[in-house]
Amino acid sequence: MESEPTRVMVAVNESSIKGYPHASISSKKAFEWTLKKIVKSNTSGFKLLLLHAQVQDEDGFDDMDSIYASPDDFRNMRERNKANGLHLLEFFVNKCHEIGVRCEAWIRKGDPTEVICHEVRRVRPDFLVVGSRGLGPFQKVFVGTVSEFCVKHAECPVIIIKRSAEESPQDPADD
Amino acid sequence: MESEPTRVMVAVNESSIKGYPHASISSKKAFEWTLKKIVKSNTSGFKLLLLHAQVQDEDGFDDMDSIYASPDDFRNMRERNKANGLHLLEFFVNKCHEIGVRCEAWIRKGDPTEVICHEVRRVRPDFLVVGSRGLGPFQKVFVGTVSEFCVKHAECPVIIIKRSAEESPQDPADD
Repeated sequence: MESEPTRVMVAVNESSIKGYPHASISSKKAFEWTLKKIVKSNTSGFKLLLLHAQVQDEDGFDDMDSIYASPDDFRNMRERNKANGLHLLEFFVNKCHEIGVRCEAWIRKGDPTEVICHEVRRVRPDFLVVGSRGLGPFQKVFVGTVSEFCVKHAECPVIIIKRSAEESPQDPADD
Repeated sequence: MESEPTRVMVAVNESSIKGYPHASISSKKAFEWTLKKIVKSNTSGFKLLLLHAQVQDEDGFDDMDSIYASPDDFRNMRERNKANGLHLLEFFVNKCHEIGVRCEAWIRKGDPTEVICHEVRRVRPDFLVVGSRGLGPFQKVFVGTVSEFCVKHAECPVIIIKRSAEESPQDPADD
């Protein structure tokens, strides 16, 4: 008889190039790697915990086309963000459903590093998979890396999956 | 049809407390974690690559009971070390055989960090599992950690499995 399913948390985020609902190249890669190299045909042996840490858009500065005239406008913005995040998760949940692996997906707002480490403490996965852009030391100075922080601070084993060179966009900070 | 087996390299070493042929607490834990959380019942889906990096005992200083009178004595010592390493690997290979998962095991002499990274480049596993004593920053100053080096330098994804507090000996540098 098979033991309890292994609970694998996969951190996912949106593409910096295409925006919502598209997943970033590195988080899509981390998800697909997990299915191909770990879950394989043993779909009943695993449960994927898909966490989308949504960076809070504090001042709506990226949202140049919108006009905010009332408190409602801000509420609408927050609801739109949530809907965007849900569309992102839909991609991953659909994929899990297709291949028959159990999953749970949810959104938490905040700094991705803090959110991921907090959720690891809360849900206690067997391990965490995080995609990485695979930036060099010089590039990292400017953009930081969520994956390195998680390796150091998450209270569970962490595996970092790097994008391949072919998958990387022209600006390696993009994803 | 199942795809190619996932090739998982597991770095193993001898116990610093019990010596050969006993495995260190952390490498045994890393091996058992891999079987329990990754391989599970899907034994045909994985192949374990068991690498024992054997630290070279340059001057035989630990070997206080031996007398070296001829070149043959040194050759004998080297052969004894090799035999010790083989006894260590036997434990892991037997376990794999019992549960029916394919494996290969081998020994390389040298600094564990260099040996592991070199062998990763040579055999290209899908990922590497390394046990860790889970030392704090103060303890690390004196003993270094192979696992952290591998995360930074091995050319494949790396997952570090820490010993639990209950498994740790009184002196956490022991293993």
